Amino acid sequence: MLIIGERINSTRKGVQEAIEKKDAAFIQEEALKQFKSGAHFIDINCGNPDEAKELENLEWAIGLVQKTVDAPLCVDSSSVRALEKGLSLCNKPGMINSTTGEKKMLDKILPLAKKYNARLVALTNDEKGMPKTAEDRIKIAEYILKEAKNAGVPEENIYFDCLVRPISAEPDQAVEFLRAVTLIKKLGDTKTACGLSNVSFGLPQRKLINSTFMCMAIYAGLDAAIVDPTDSRMLTSIFASEALIVKDEYCMNYITAIREGRLS
Amino acid sequence: MLIIGERINSTRKGVQEAIEKKDAAFIQEEALKQFKSGAHFIDINCGNPDEAKELENLEWAIGLVQKTVDAPLCVDSSSVRALEKGLSLCNKPGMINSTTGEKKMLDKILPLAKKYNARLVALTNDEKGMPKTAEDRIKIAEYILKEAKNAGVPEENIYFDCLVRPISAEPDQAVEFLRAVTLIKKLGDTKTACGLSNVSFGLPQRKLINSTFMCMAIYAGLDAAIVDPTDSRMLTSIFASEALIVKDEYCMNYITAIREGRLS
Repeated sequence: MLIIGERINSTRKGVQEAIEKKDAAFIQEEALKQFKSGAHFIDINCGNPDEAKELENLEWAIGLVQKTVDAPLCVDSSSVRALEKGLSLCNKPGMINSTTGEKKMLDKILPLAKKYNARLVALTNDEKGMPKTAEDRIKIAEYILKEAKNAGVPEENIYFDCLVRPISAEPDQAVEFLRAVTLIKKLGDTKTACGLSNVSFGLPQRKLINSTFMCMAIYAGLDAAIVDPTDSRMLTSIFASEALIVKDEYCMNYITAIREGRLS
Repeated sequence: MLIIGERINSTRKGVQEAIEKKDAAFIQEEALKQFKSGAHFIDINCGNPDEAKELENLEWAIGLVQKTVDAPLCVDSSSVRALEKGLSLCNKPGMINSTTGEKKMLDKILPLAKKYNARLVALTNDEKGMPKTAEDRIKIAEYILKEAKNAGVPEENIYFDCLVRPISAEPDQAVEFLRAVTLIKKLGDTKTACGLSNVSFGLPQRKLINSTFMCMAIYAGLDAAIVDPTDSRMLTSIFASEALIVKDEYCMNYITAIREGRLS
């Protein structure tokens, strides 16, 4: 599974401060520890109400991370200008985080995915709001897929995010998410991705719920996750799950990670 | 999910010694701590090459456990005489662990399940040996179900064990097991059970693999598991999984178990 390291995100307090102060060592350390823990992509989010500031910070952070680790980047922003700026700075084909199924978003973001040969996280919500059932998510995914084909974005570059929602508020949403992951992969050579910590919002010991949910999501067919790879419990769910579903031949990745003390 | 506490089993060294020495305090403590940890059934296995000895030990252990905890028992033996003896001593309808799909076993054990109104763990292997695919398991389950109906054993009392095997030797067997659990539940009002620690045989840090597998098995539809309920990691997989798949309304069991310090 593709592990997208989520830690360099300005919604995290320490990160926000480091970006403001241009604390290079802090950001480099965050990049390095995620890479060493097994991140395949490093997510970078410099979100800022001031778009010019975001663009400036993003340029700084991307340059820094690319100097530090040899991993492709996942450019994470709600600003289309920031996404384009970030992609233009990537040394390797990166990932876009994210579009929705809204036509006005797809019209702007699919051309970027095409131009920069980037993978694209596509959230399965649209103008009508959040989907309820797995089938609602599939309908939106089908629309995104059609638009992606029209825009010349290959379907294997699309990572559908089936939208994890808190079970404390909407108890059936974890199952709807899992069903959607399995169903969406039947649409073609498409993939799935998600951030999954939302699922445990409002519950105690959230990491226990999150890591359990990861096991189920991998069995359901999840291809990529935006997670904290330095969370050894989460990493254990990923490595043990892949060993169990024959995505880790002879369990070698699991055994190696155990030997290196990365799992617990 | 039904938790069947597996600790009182003569294949465990300490237990074997306690049974030999008739160490009542040891066995009572094992029963009590499993019950307090959340076991719904207490498995009792006094297996012994000397059948007369097994019957004697079983009578002693069953009496002791029933004096100690108010839980039904799962009588666990490869001896049909021991199973009958055990069932005859149960204060509440118990569980039989186990039959296979072999005709000569079913002919002896189904009448016991009927006579004692017992639940029955039915392993999905038969005269031809161990099944390879999920579909092989289904065929054997269908045969067991037909025989059970003929013998007057209600299908809701049958817990099919889809036979967990080590991924270190047979990498695809975890997935075949999980697929079988999902498929077997479509046969009718049938249930599934298993002991799942075999899956990690030959791998390091087996508890990590076992508890991950439990999350997947519960999502696949597992109804009962023969496990060590004092293993807080395993218990976490059970409680967190049930919260995620809407088998724990408002996550109350999960939250309570967290408050009581039973999960980690």
